[in-house]
Amino acid sequence: MGKCHAAAWNSVRMIFGDTPPVRLVHLGEVNQALAEKKASEFGFDKASGDWRAVIDDPRVDVVSITAPNAFHKEMALAALAAGKHVWCEKPMATAFEDAEAMADAAARSGKAAILGYNYIQSPGVRHIRRLLNEQAIGEVNHIRIEMDEDFMADADAPFSWRNETSAGYGALDDFAVHPLSLLYNLFGRVSHVMCEMTKPYATRRAADGSSRAVETFDAASALIRLENGVSGTLSVNRCAWGRKGRIAIQIYGSRGTILFDQEQFNQIQLYLAGDRPEEQGFRTILAAPHHEPYGQFVPAPGHGLGFNDLKTIECHELICCINGTVANVIDFNAGLEIERTVHAMAQSHRERRWLSLS
Amino acid sequence: MGKCHAAAWNSVRMIFGDTPPVRLVHLGEVNQALAEKKASEFGFDKASGDWRAVIDDPRVDVVSITAPNAFHKEMALAALAAGKHVWCEKPMATAFEDAEAMADAAARSGKAAILGYNYIQSPGVRHIRRLLNEQAIGEVNHIRIEMDEDFMADADAPFSWRNETSAGYGALDDFAVHPLSLLYNLFGRVSHVMCEMTKPYATRRAADGSSRAVETFDAASALIRLENGVSGTLSVNRCAWGRKGRIAIQIYGSRGTILFDQEQFNQIQLYLAGDRPEEQGFRTILAAPHHEPYGQFVPAPGHGLGFNDLKTIECHELICCINGTVANVIDFNAGLEIERTVHAMAQSHRERRWLSLS
Amino acid sequence: MGKCHAAAWNSVRMIFGDTPPVRLVHLGEVNQALAEKKASEFGFDKASGDWRAVIDDPRVDVVSITAPNAFHKEMALAALAAGKHVWCEKPMATAFEDAEAMADAAARSGKAAILGYNYIQSPGVRHIRRLLNEQAIGEVNHIRIEMDEDFMADADAPFSWRNETSAGYGALDDFAVHPLSLLYNLFGRVSHVMCEMTKPYATRRAADGSSRAVETFDAASALIRLENGVSGTLSVNRCAWGRKGRIAIQIYGSRGTILFDQEQFNQIQLYLAGDRPEEQGFRTILAAPHHEPYGQFVPAPGHGLGFNDLKTIECHELICCINGTVANVIDFNAGLEIERTVHAMAQSHRERRWLSLS
Amino acid sequence: MGKCHAAAWNSVRMIFGDTPPVRLVHLGEVNQALAEKKASEFGFDKASGDWRAVIDDPRVDVVSITAPNAFHKEMALAALAAGKHVWCEKPMATAFEDAEAMADAAARSGKAAILGYNYIQSPGVRHIRRLLNEQAIGEVNHIRIEMDEDFMADADAPFSWRNETSAGYGALDDFAVHPLSLLYNLFGRVSHVMCEMTKPYATRRAADGSSRAVETFDAASALIRLENGVSGTLSVNRCAWGRKGRIAIQIYGSRGTILFDQEQFNQIQLYLAGDRPEEQGFRTILAAPHHEPYGQFVPAPGHGLGFNDLKTIECHELICCINGTVANVIDFNAGLEIERTVHAMAQSHRERRWLSLS
Repeated sequence: MGKCHAAAWNSVRMIFGDTPPVRLVHLGEVNQALAEKKASEFGFDKASGDWRAVIDDPRVDVVSITAPNAFHKEMALAALAAGKHVWCEKPMATAFEDAEAMADAAARSGKAAILGYNYIQSPGVRHIRRLLNEQAIGEVNHIRIEMDEDFMADADAPFSWRNETSAGYGALDDFAVHPLSLLYNLFGRVSHVMCEMTKPYATRRAADGSSRAVETFDAASALIRLENGVSGTLSVNRCAWGRKGRIAIQIYGSRGTILFDQEQFNQIQLYLAGDRPEEQGFRTILAAPHHEPYGQFVPAPGHGLGFNDLKTIECHELICCINGTVANVIDFNAGLEIERTVHAMAQSHRERRWLSLS
Repeated sequence: MGKCHAAAWNSVRMIFGDTPPVRLVHLGEVNQALAEKKASEFGFDKASGDWRAVIDDPRVDVVSITAPNAFHKEMALAALAAGKHVWCEKPMATAFEDAEAMADAAARSGKAAILGYNYIQSPGVRHIRRLLNEQAIGEVNHIRIEMDEDFMADADAPFSWRNETSAGYGALDDFAVHPLSLLYNLFGRVSHVMCEMTKPYATRRAADGSSRAVETFDAASALIRLENGVSGTLSVNRCAWGRKGRIAIQIYGSRGTILFDQEQFNQIQLYLAGDRPEEQGFRTILAAPHHEPYGQFVPAPGHGLGFNDLKTIECHELICCINGTVANVIDFNAGLEIERTVHAMAQSHRERRWLSLS
Repeated sequence: MGKCHAAAWNSVRMIFGDTPPVRLVHLGEVNQALAEKKASEFGFDKASGDWRAVIDDPRVDVVSITAPNAFHKEMALAALAAGKHVWCEKPMATAFEDAEAMADAAARSGKAAILGYNYIQSPGVRHIRRLLNEQAIGEVNHIRIEMDEDFMADADAPFSWRNETSAGYGALDDFAVHPLSLLYNLFGRVSHVMCEMTKPYATRRAADGSSRAVETFDAASALIRLENGVSGTLSVNRCAWGRKGRIAIQIYGSRGTILFDQEQFNQIQLYLAGDRPEEQGFRTILAAPHHEPYGQFVPAPGHGLGFNDLKTIECHELICCINGTVANVIDFNAGLEIERTVHAMAQSHRERRWLSLS
Repeated sequence: MGKCHAAAWNSVRMIFGDTPPVRLVHLGEVNQALAEKKASEFGFDKASGDWRAVIDDPRVDVVSITAPNAFHKEMALAALAAGKHVWCEKPMATAFEDAEAMADAAARSGKAAILGYNYIQSPGVRHIRRLLNEQAIGEVNHIRIEMDEDFMADADAPFSWRNETSAGYGALDDFAVHPLSLLYNLFGRVSHVMCEMTKPYATRRAADGSSRAVETFDAASALIRLENGVSGTLSVNRCAWGRKGRIAIQIYGSRGTILFDQEQFNQIQLYLAGDRPEEQGFRTILAAPHHEPYGQFVPAPGHGLGFNDLKTIECHELICCINGTVANVIDFNAGLEIERTVHAMAQSHRERRWLSLS
């Protein structure tokens, strides 16, 4: 993710044209040698083997935090305390209290502090938001959202740190935060959850050849209810063979339906009940300059953005945030809301009952 | 559905070649005139305005029951008592006790008594069953099944009998029985359910122009667990604009994934983790003579069966059932199991808790 | 195809309701035993081992000709001479002169004489015709049509009669007649052709193990121009691995585009330049009761017709033809036009130049 | 395209890590003010209102030529003469003689001189090349390639310079060069062509309201034969409503089929005749780190590259070219071959006959 942030910073002005010049000032890594290698590759002026040096550097205005999750809180608090803006990768923190501390610090600092929930940035998702605002599909009454990948699907893969409780709940905190960011971005807060977490593989082979019980939950399914009254389901699975970066959303409204899948994020599907009945059908709409900010990247429709472009858009939104213009971001406050939902889902699983988030 | 059964009876021998000649003996309708009109159109020898005349007819061996659900029990009990085989449309009955009585009567009769769950009959679904038996995708660990249509989606449609409690729960009994028949057919019994039913539209306009509260639930979502340990979700929605006959199934296993959608029932999708990594991908497999009993209908692959063909296959399975050969059917016993699950789901909704079906 | 015709005759009244009762009177086969077996399976009253007995049978009104192509002319002429209506499978005849004789005989007879070009019968294609008539996509200016299957794709399959010159040109007469029937049905006559036929496999292994030169052309590509001024391409390939019943049509107009693929013949795709620019996209329109005559088969949209249903529709059109009502058929006259185009394409290939059909 | 090149130069080292540092030295534009604005946005050290100043700049090693086509020859010759490497946008030049002069100059210079045919750079197309080399689908025997967009599809758009003969043939030189670059890259030289160019709209409205004859051909269709013996078709259409960046390729071989569409360039489809017959089907394979150089951009499969990423890959190949390592590029020599084919196609159209390119 470090490379991904660097690439975004490196491209944002060239792509959007409306930002001040961006300088890659100071790169921190776990040791000086690695820091220097990366700084050279990425084009940073300076390199340090201690992340605190970056935060102490007076020339630094914004700090990108792409270190392991366990460091997020400490780094973010230090950066905010030093008067820097912060761009922190998700999930926010390993413990809810840490996330709270981060949101508090951000609120007190008056600085921009956002999380790397880049899936909300695609022109497709942004156009869905516009369609919802315009009531193109009427009142939404039902949603389903799924996120599936297969990076944990190999039953023969050895037991790893990802299978230990110390790594978190599993699919829920590592994964469900993405669909939750989309729900938050499109609809607002989740109010009620009823979740079950499951283990596709109960055991895995340990290094010594023995069978060891998997402690985390690689799949989770939930009934949800949003604060706006809409109900639906949220499902995540890290053992879903064949799914590579699927985030499938179904949005049902009183006048139509919207479908989206992140694996084909350069398109959305739209069904309008207002079309002539004989020709009603899901329209496959390719991303185009009509769909902001696609046109900043390519002038012709249907040519496609890539995953890294979403990060460049996110970077641009962060700059908007810093400049005080309206921005489409998941800030630390929204991020805390997402964390709260995740923990409520886990609690709902443990207690086998509906939980309210209000 | 009467026409659909008649067409199946009419075609089954021509298509399969291995059944005895089938005679359309006696058609019953609500009155003599209509009965005669239909008998002429469908090619029945005789017509009666009283369904009991059909059951009393000694030349009749099998009775197709396609009357409204409220008549299923009475007709089925009478037919079984008269020593006829019974082919009854779903859902089995309006009350669980009625379904129990029907299953009891069928068990005592020794006659074939099956329900019209035709979606289990497609060559695609049958091939999925074969793939599961062969462990082509290893051990299944997670499933998701959805059924969506839009025949109740028009928010401006007037309040109707379908919106009254007397019509049943709503999407659950009218609709969810189909995905439940597929689950039963592919995996066996459901053991635990956690369901929420919802109302996409809280009110509808009554004939007198007033707004009237909708009493039934046009959508339902459930967390489920099967007796074989597999977990997943089941979702149904009759207000899903753009969905016409969608029954989407995702089956995740330890060595691959199977996808199916009834709207494209002449194909299945299969991902095999055993394929060379560089070329792993979902295969779109078109129905072909390889997939029984497609070849009985068309000798060339990819030419497609239609909805009515599924009913002809079902009819053929019923004849197998009567002949005592192994048959792929939802008999009254299995149908009772499906009804039991539906009622447990509704109870789970009311009590807002997980329910066990064991 | 005999079974297919029998099934259509058997179902047509039940499905459409508006035809007179249909009786399966007399079945002819190559010998008496086979004729009797088939007559029993298909429900015919009588069976003969000589096809002339069928034509001589005064109770027979319509003759279905599903014998090998070499017999089409003789049978059709005899049937027409005997005052029967004729439903003959395609291609019309093995020689152009034979097709001419058949068209002449049909014209003189005053009887209905149609060919089995069933792909023009799907609700999707019929709706495309309506859209074209309504100028929904404006003036059509460009088309592309492809037909591909893979039944000759196995390079290791032995040399067979299909590879000999006596079997005809190859893909062109066996295969291209289908897309040509669609072009004729949707747009009218082809006026100019520039074709090249090719041999995906130059040789095949003969029974004695030797390598033998393939004489027919399993693929053909053509530039075409229609009488209405529209230009485009027509391509066919019987060695196209993975294609099972593909007939892909692209129709470009001044206000939109229509796409169709026979492998998914229960849907069409439509792009309308008149839709709001931000939401323009190809609509996937599922066959529904809106699209005649889908509703005769199934009352609910999106449930799908099958290949055999197309034959039932064709049978119904034949009955309309016999009754003198407007019918959507390829009669012997239109069939002759298709044959003429095929032969012109072959000549164009031989002479390596554009040929005019006017 | 200037922005696109600048973005590629700016990202290439960060993405690939194995290139020397890249400096954006000197930007030329039509006047000093615009040059300075762009230089600031794109991060160039220096700006000039005269392109010759860039070529004269001794610090410049490589020149990106993204000026209108009419300038390509003059700029490229000057740059090569000055000992610079050249990266020139396509098409190569407006006249064939100019392209020849450019190819000659490049050959004499010993410098890297490549054209911006970026569609050959996607991981999907690269993987197709690998599959072809591995004979994964056996011997290729038939291909079809289409390129369609709709930027000229609006029949009401006014007559413009693009409709004048001075703009070239039309779809052929502006558009067909892309599919030709793919054919060259995947299969080698085209040997025979039989082309027809057409005008979807014969006239357009001029500024003065009068109707003016369109002089260029917005669509073209061709039968082609490659030097390796493979036959097929090539079709292009700039008036194809709904097509945005379609380049659809069908590659038929003796053991399988490969499909690709640039509108979904993060996937390829593969059918293998060697799969178990019951489960043969087109595999949809999502771009992944298995497919070089996808992994340089994103470590996870299925997350997708964008159009601009293809240009970054092209830039990296150019650097490989400069460094003398094997590179996947369309150099001036290959570009000349593409131009030769385009002109032969146009001649074939004029003379209405097959033309040989050997």
